[in-house]
Amino acid sequence: MTTLPLEDYNIYVGDCWEAFNGFLADSHYSKVFVIVDENTEQLCLPKLKAHCPTLLEAQLIRVTAGEQHKNIESCQHIWSTMMAAKADRKALTVNLGGGVIGDMGGFCASTFKRGMDFVQVPTTLLSQVDASIGGKLGIDFADVKNSVGLFANPKAVFVLPNFLETLSARELRSGFAEIIKHALIADHRQWMSLLQEEDLQQIAWEQVIVHSLGIKQRVVEEDPFERGLRKALNFGHTIGHAVESQALHSDDPLLHGEAIAVGMVAELFLSHKVLGLPLEKVQQATDYLLTHYGRRRIDLSNPALLLSLMRNDKKNEGGKINFSLLPELGQVQVNQTCEEALILESLNFYQDSCHQPTNAR
Amino acid sequence: MTTLPLEDYNIYVGDCWEAFNGFLADSHYSKVFVIVDENTEQLCLPKLKAHCPTLLEAQLIRVTAGEQHKNIESCQHIWSTMMAAKADRKALTVNLGGGVIGDMGGFCASTFKRGMDFVQVPTTLLSQVDASIGGKLGIDFADVKNSVGLFANPKAVFVLPNFLETLSARELRSGFAEIIKHALIADHRQWMSLLQEEDLQQIAWEQVIVHSLGIKQRVVEEDPFERGLRKALNFGHTIGHAVESQALHSDDPLLHGEAIAVGMVAELFLSHKVLGLPLEKVQQATDYLLTHYGRRRIDLSNPALLLSLMRNDKKNEGGKINFSLLPELGQVQVNQTCEEALILESLNFYQDSCHQPTNAR
Repeated sequence: MTTLPLEDYNIYVGDCWEAFNGFLADSHYSKVFVIVDENTEQLCLPKLKAHCPTLLEAQLIRVTAGEQHKNIESCQHIWSTMMAAKADRKALTVNLGGGVIGDMGGFCASTFKRGMDFVQVPTTLLSQVDASIGGKLGIDFADVKNSVGLFANPKAVFVLPNFLETLSARELRSGFAEIIKHALIADHRQWMSLLQEEDLQQIAWEQVIVHSLGIKQRVVEEDPFERGLRKALNFGHTIGHAVESQALHSDDPLLHGEAIAVGMVAELFLSHKVLGLPLEKVQQATDYLLTHYGRRRIDLSNPALLLSLMRNDKKNEGGKINFSLLPELGQVQVNQTCEEALILESLNFYQDSCHQPTNAR
Repeated sequence: MTTLPLEDYNIYVGDCWEAFNGFLADSHYSKVFVIVDENTEQLCLPKLKAHCPTLLEAQLIRVTAGEQHKNIESCQHIWSTMMAAKADRKALTVNLGGGVIGDMGGFCASTFKRGMDFVQVPTTLLSQVDASIGGKLGIDFADVKNSVGLFANPKAVFVLPNFLETLSARELRSGFAEIIKHALIADHRQWMSLLQEEDLQQIAWEQVIVHSLGIKQRVVEEDPFERGLRKALNFGHTIGHAVESQALHSDDPLLHGEAIAVGMVAELFLSHKVLGLPLEKVQQATDYLLTHYGRRRIDLSNPALLLSLMRNDKKNEGGKINFSLLPELGQVQVNQTCEEALILESLNFYQDSCHQPTNAR
């Protein structure tokens, strides 16, 4: 087990049941809630109960799996359950699930009676590397991702790579996109190392997760409230979030990492155009992303909608669309704005790349 | 004008339009929203616009007046309006109204895209003396007052006693209850001075408000997140909130201060029983409260409901009902628990007192 000490709390990565039991024993909470969805109730909760006997008495709060349920109605269900159980502010919420449960459960805990403690037990790769640091909590509102929420830190995060065995290959790949992003914005050596990874099933996860969390930690601790530097983490997300939002209600929704992979390809192109990232580097990273994430066409029939979704991103100010772009692989510059025509060109670059033969990796 | 400097922001009390205009000119917000209800739109907004010309371009967000609209549906309306206006995190919300607008507008601003700035322009006496300090924001949920919310401070508070002219005598009295409470828990001299006030219409408000805010400031700054001492402010509120919640959906709802006046009488009785507050002091304060607030009978037909509402109060821990009681007028002790039978006795004391002739003041 590796312990990553942050300013306000610890992240435990690996076989960390003992740390979890120690935390529970030291804390004397008046009541414990465990938020699950149908997947984590079936696949992860039995392990949690087997390793943490005090949680046998915890009260379950069930929400429906899926990003489309990360909404105010689910919050009302969570708050109602807490209220019916007469929970006080000395209760604890354990969020056992992926990003939806972590973001929404943390938001509900932080706002119930103006704030009870919560811990994150992320069960997807995405939530293990992305949602464990940064204190971003919230829900989707009016079809805009994470548009209602707040910043608050958990009391602890327990990352159990064993839970990754419960994921489909597709979900695992989705989470891997954030690991790729962390390398691309901040660590060229890690990027070269990821290029060698052929098979996600064979990765030594504890080590890769700890490394990726370390990158995010450095960025977030310099800018906890996303005033500046932290926008570095937004690489791939301005376009990725818009593509994800557009696909949310389609027949074929994208997983977050899949959308971010699309966004990273388009924003690699923007990085070339705006900051002079060498074209062969764009091509190298694009080939890698397309190989891992498939050549999935995106719907470009309504570019005005996509641009409008980008304009609604939280990082924007004064109506301009804000990007974090790469002058080199492993480096990032925040607060880059692009003309709409260039943004559309970058989406076409993605679409065209899907038709090109991939260069040998 | 008096400026009360707090740790994070200033409260301006008096004729503070110039301070408001200075704040707006210095801040460069990308957009300004003004939240109003039908009363403040008619009675207060014209003055705001007349004195702050830059606010002529602000976007109004209208909510329906009344505690029963301090709910998640109203929040959805506020967030939707902000979203439709493509607001970013550099926008500002001006909450022009009483506690409902201040608490709910502050909550919505603090959670929109994880937080935009807001300023409070409280228009009722209650919100001027109570909601200006402490950072408590939120809404009612599942019939429990303020059960969803968070702590966040405004950028500034502008208290204009002139707005009190827009209030009915009943609303003015309601706000006065918090001024009485501040004196009873912390300032015997101020309590003696309030005993001399016969006519609320004749009070020199700027001075009384500044004094009352000073008491609250001292309590809150010692305990910003309500871990201990701040519970002092809860005097009258454990029972008062329950009485208020019960009456919320009745034909004859109580204003907040009216419910707190009931709660203070009952908790004066508890103070006598638990901490030995002399009975003649209980009688003195009870007479004063009944004279100001009328002899309004409360519904005691369902004591289990009232106790259940008290148990749901945020300050409770581990299922016990928590009180802040007075060993002397002008002093307070927090974390006092009472048996249910005694609590019911205190409610009967209130009810019986309504039948007694008032002693001369």
